[in-house]
Amino acid sequence: MTSPVLLDRADLHASLADPALLSMNFLNEVAGRYPRAISFAPGRPTEETFDVADLHRYLDAYARHLAEDKGYDEVRVRRELFQYGRTKGVVHELIARQLQLDEGITVDPEAIVVTVGAQEALWLVLRALRAAENDVVLAVTPAYVGLTGAARLLDLPVRSVPEGPHGLRPEDLLDRIRAVRAAGERPRALYLVPDFSNPSGHSLDLATRRRLLEIAAEEDILLLEDNPYGYFRAADGERLPTLKALDTGQRVVHVGSLAKTCFPGARVGFAVADQRIAGGGLLADELSRAKSMVTVNTSPISQALVGGMLLEHGGSLLRANERPIAVYRRNLDCLLKGLERRFSALPGVSWNTPSGGFFVVVTVPFPVTDALLEDAAVRHGVLFTPMRHFGDDARSARQLRLSCSYLTTNQIESGLDRLNDLIAEHLRAAPDA
Amino acid sequence: MTSPVLLDRADLHASLADPALLSMNFLNEVAGRYPRAISFAPGRPTEETFDVADLHRYLDAYARHLAEDKGYDEVRVRRELFQYGRTKGVVHELIARQLQLDEGITVDPEAIVVTVGAQEALWLVLRALRAAENDVVLAVTPAYVGLTGAARLLDLPVRSVPEGPHGLRPEDLLDRIRAVRAAGERPRALYLVPDFSNPSGHSLDLATRRRLLEIAAEEDILLLEDNPYGYFRAADGERLPTLKALDTGQRVVHVGSLAKTCFPGARVGFAVADQRIAGGGLLADELSRAKSMVTVNTSPISQALVGGMLLEHGGSLLRANERPIAVYRRNLDCLLKGLERRFSALPGVSWNTPSGGFFVVVTVPFPVTDALLEDAAVRHGVLFTPMRHFGDDARSARQLRLSCSYLTTNQIESGLDRLNDLIAEHLRAAPDA
Repeated sequence: MTSPVLLDRADLHASLADPALLSMNFLNEVAGRYPRAISFAPGRPTEETFDVADLHRYLDAYARHLAEDKGYDEVRVRRELFQYGRTKGVVHELIARQLQLDEGITVDPEAIVVTVGAQEALWLVLRALRAAENDVVLAVTPAYVGLTGAARLLDLPVRSVPEGPHGLRPEDLLDRIRAVRAAGERPRALYLVPDFSNPSGHSLDLATRRRLLEIAAEEDILLLEDNPYGYFRAADGERLPTLKALDTGQRVVHVGSLAKTCFPGARVGFAVADQRIAGGGLLADELSRAKSMVTVNTSPISQALVGGMLLEHGGSLLRANERPIAVYRRNLDCLLKGLERRFSALPGVSWNTPSGGFFVVVTVPFPVTDALLEDAAVRHGVLFTPMRHFGDDARSARQLRLSCSYLTTNQIESGLDRLNDLIAEHLRAAPDA
Repeated sequence: MTSPVLLDRADLHASLADPALLSMNFLNEVAGRYPRAISFAPGRPTEETFDVADLHRYLDAYARHLAEDKGYDEVRVRRELFQYGRTKGVVHELIARQLQLDEGITVDPEAIVVTVGAQEALWLVLRALRAAENDVVLAVTPAYVGLTGAARLLDLPVRSVPEGPHGLRPEDLLDRIRAVRAAGERPRALYLVPDFSNPSGHSLDLATRRRLLEIAAEEDILLLEDNPYGYFRAADGERLPTLKALDTGQRVVHVGSLAKTCFPGARVGFAVADQRIAGGGLLADELSRAKSMVTVNTSPISQALVGGMLLEHGGSLLRANERPIAVYRRNLDCLLKGLERRFSALPGVSWNTPSGGFFVVVTVPFPVTDALLEDAAVRHGVLFTPMRHFGDDARSARQLRLSCSYLTTNQIESGLDRLNDLIAEHLRAAPDA
């Protein structure tokens, strides 16, 4: 009998104790401890449209596609589903077609890497771009914690480009690039969510999108465009083109999530990485090599499920999401009207009005801490996400993110009542805070 | 219109052009180019037992388990399958039970992290253990290229402990640890496949297993035990205990693959990481935090499929694998007898006789290069894996790995005839080479 190992945290990689990684843990853990609280916290898709029978049907639809459209015999169909598969994925042609149909993005399927969620795609791109000690990635902040966390795992510094009250300003990006360069660092890419951003809810206007592409070319950086929410516009009418749809110089690596448009349980996302490498090949091939040493390939069964769902809807995610889009419109409308009804007369309480997506940010005249969140959970039965988990500026410290994607309108109304109690209590306690 | 990006490979992480990552690519690519060659190359499981109907049945079996054994209502069952899930996985209890039943390993389910294949588990462990610039991992070599590749992605040096003709010798490990320390490096763990190793086919005897555990305690390193093939013993009788089954001091991180015992398309593996961290928690929790920033969680649908398969067989992988085990015994026997029949009289040609698993290593009296592999594919219609992809010693340079898991006995016989032609041709051309 030898004495048991006791590992010291100092002997493990520093990222594992980094605030970005601990944040994710803390937030999940709080939600788990108060399962009966109404939770405005998670950016989860609605469950109203899920049905286990769909999984069986999607799988069969994809198997039929392999047999009928691809001409595979039974042995080959089995092999495609059960065995190891192509590192870059097997639904790349379906994704390329979807991007053409829904986004007007024309892309060679060979430039697509199908990944284990958008998170793996982000990680792979950051891995590829960190070549030298002085490489850094820029991120519009407050930023999605998954970007920050992936960078931490790679010891890749993240330099923030703070959003203004109405979102990213191109001049702030230019200033930041120059400051970073002056400090001897090399900015490789700017991470951003141009449509209904997580966490801020902001969207970029067309002029800003075009200007960002110009800056990327002038400053020789890439734009790492993350697009989980683009289809969830709150009103009818034209969606703005994604950065990738406007990209004529391969400045954009476009990361797609199928967690919100299909379902999270498939764990399927993708990167469009059509940048050419000197000497041959595409950035997608480089990402694929890295992927082969992290997850080998994305489960072909998961790919079959999202592939079957696409096939059932003529290859379009917009069509596949008609019902969820209606749910998100209903919920965002309910949330914004509910905020208006309860808080419009309250001094110091304000919020933004995103034109789509899952998230609204509320500013209050007191600090929004993890302790406040715990108190809200215990005494008021309501959960949200303190914005300080996404940014370290003074504004974020008094903001909270409300996600409405996952709730019913009844839950949203009750949740806002509870939030109202919490806010009223804090305003009474410290009216000038 | 801006000029298109042209990325320089020097501006991408060096690992992406590393021989370990290029090897994997090259080997896959050659196999893809000669689909009609008989391939002794891939370490794939047999397809003889796959049936698409099984996937539907496994999914239903798992959903029933959630409803009946866990008491989940319909909404909760849907949520478990469709939504994001617990980062450490949802089939951890089934895996703990399987390890108890089949291996005699008693482990707290909380110490298990369910991963996207064993590859992600390896990567996570290496990520956690690389805390300082001078940290290195030791690997028994010739080594599985997935270990080397994962380490490259982390800039973590791999220091090899060469196998003797009959496998790893503990004294060689001690020598290597001392040499590494003398060079100012800190060895964190030894990677090894104790049963029917990939690529060498070697297994460790019980005395060696016990001695390795002693050395790990004395030298304060961990043993990273990878066990994809342990159930595939060629003869009846007692299996030797895994290192983890003998581990009384939490010196072993045990990595399991369900790719061979269930099916690769699920992409499910796991790590048993029951090492305690000073201040609280288990190494599994640290790995989980890293995982949350790479793949978020392993697809719950993939987990449901392997979970359903386990449930159908009373929780035992040994029982679930009765048919595959028979196939592998038949194939290994056919391969070894076929080698004997064809090559026993040939000077300079020899091979080892593993007691199970997928792989046999053949030594020939001429260099086994990638060019030879191409020639074998083009002119003889046979594929194998040059051992130089797994080790850079003089012995590996004249060795090839034959995998028999994936073939029928007819294919094995024809493949050996073709290999015979190739070898005879080379012996005629350079009898004294």
